[in-house]
Amino acid sequence: MAGQRGPLLIIGGGEDKTGECRILRRFLELAGGRSARVAVITAASELGEEAGAVYRDVFGRLGAQEVTVLRVADRRDADDPAVAATLERATAVFFTGGDQLRITSTLGGTRLLAALQRAHAEGMALGGTSAGASAMSATMIVGGHGDDTAKRDLLRMSPGLGFLSAAVVDQHFAQRGRITRLLAALSQNPEVLGIGLDEDTGIAVAPDGEAEVVGSGTATFLDGRTVTFTNASESSAVDPLALMDVLVHVLPHGYRFHLGNRRPARPA
Amino acid sequence: MAGQRGPLLIIGGGEDKTGECRILRRFLELAGGRSARVAVITAASELGEEAGAVYRDVFGRLGAQEVTVLRVADRRDADDPAVAATLERATAVFFTGGDQLRITSTLGGTRLLAALQRAHAEGMALGGTSAGASAMSATMIVGGHGDDTAKRDLLRMSPGLGFLSAAVVDQHFAQRGRITRLLAALSQNPEVLGIGLDEDTGIAVAPDGEAEVVGSGTATFLDGRTVTFTNASESSAVDPLALMDVLVHVLPHGYRFHLGNRRPARPA
Repeated sequence: MAGQRGPLLIIGGGEDKTGECRILRRFLELAGGRSARVAVITAASELGEEAGAVYRDVFGRLGAQEVTVLRVADRRDADDPAVAATLERATAVFFTGGDQLRITSTLGGTRLLAALQRAHAEGMALGGTSAGASAMSATMIVGGHGDDTAKRDLLRMSPGLGFLSAAVVDQHFAQRGRITRLLAALSQNPEVLGIGLDEDTGIAVAPDGEAEVVGSGTATFLDGRTVTFTNASESSAVDPLALMDVLVHVLPHGYRFHLGNRRPARPA
Repeated sequence: MAGQRGPLLIIGGGEDKTGECRILRRFLELAGGRSARVAVITAASELGEEAGAVYRDVFGRLGAQEVTVLRVADRRDADDPAVAATLERATAVFFTGGDQLRITSTLGGTRLLAALQRAHAEGMALGGTSAGASAMSATMIVGGHGDDTAKRDLLRMSPGLGFLSAAVVDQHFAQRGRITRLLAALSQNPEVLGIGLDEDTGIAVAPDGEAEVVGSGTATFLDGRTVTFTNASESSAVDPLALMDVLVHVLPHGYRFHLGNRRPARPA
């Protein structure tokens, strides 16, 4: 990973917005503290105005210098040079929740995404919660029940924004029992790291690849590089999964996990 | 494990009773095929009569020579020498679902359990579904939500019947998202093997410790012996779990897992 690119804060949804706000405070720290200028992208939700207002309030209350909610209702907005130019002033961009396919189908291939990629490559912080978290990975999960036996047919995946490479992120993880679908994703390419984020739980990923868990739940890391066998290619899509030797780490607040060497560590 | 003791069939609940009945057929095979004489124990349920009738019908239909439903409503029944003597004719005992605490609190320390232990040690097959599956392990899970972040407080455990040593069984596994509570159990003693059984899925455990998966879902095996760190003792009961390096195997019908060396294997 390039040394100059910005940090990521990826959140499993349902983060505290009224109490201590540990996760959103951490996001503002990454965004520059008192000089944080946050651009909020609500493309994931049809209720963009409302979602934007919530984050404008909370980031404002937590001391951001400036919070702008970008109006990105469709691809025309996302391709509008004036909208993309908004990012020039921002020190951070935050993606709200909703539907990750709305994010990628609205932003994919547009000037806004190009500006975002450029800014992040130059150090701008990026955050996302729920759908905004899923969209961060190169391949993202877009659907699939969490309450059934693991099988290939269980999940659907799509190309994500790619800010987090070689990982697939799932959110509302413990709350919606999603480990089976993340294991199903992993079985199709064990090189991929599965990251499951509980509600009110995020990972702050430094440019060097070190992720630190923030919040009240846990982050689950599924490492497939140890996998000795999967039936992903030989079985039909509705057959139950076979997957041997996945390494699992469950980590709470303050614990770290290096996305490069894939080793967990206790709080510093 | 002693070479002479009987096989086990442990089922995650909701097994097919109207279609192909793969799991219950397997149980009858273990029970002696056409000469199977099954004693059904419905102690887990207040609706013992109904539960018993269901299994009397299905085992009868599948060709058992004899099916007896034991009337074990309370400890007095379980300590009745006449009830315990029923087992002398049985080639297999099957525990129905309900509440595993009803099984152990009714049978623990009684003549019926002693007779069961003796008969199983001499080769009699034992089966159990749902609560009847949980009760098989030495320590059993008796409660805990499946839809929350993994933490110690999440689960309650009790002494089980102990037919499956060094393992903790959880049932309705994928359907109720129970991996977090099984991981929490494992963190408290990583020597224990966690076995999660989906609905309509069981494991047939041979006396030598080889378990074979049977049914339409998967069996998940959580091996804690590779664990490098857990915060189980240093954290409070409501703190989220930290657990590093658990090895996970997800196996469907026909796959095997040896409870001794803890290695998975493809279908024979």
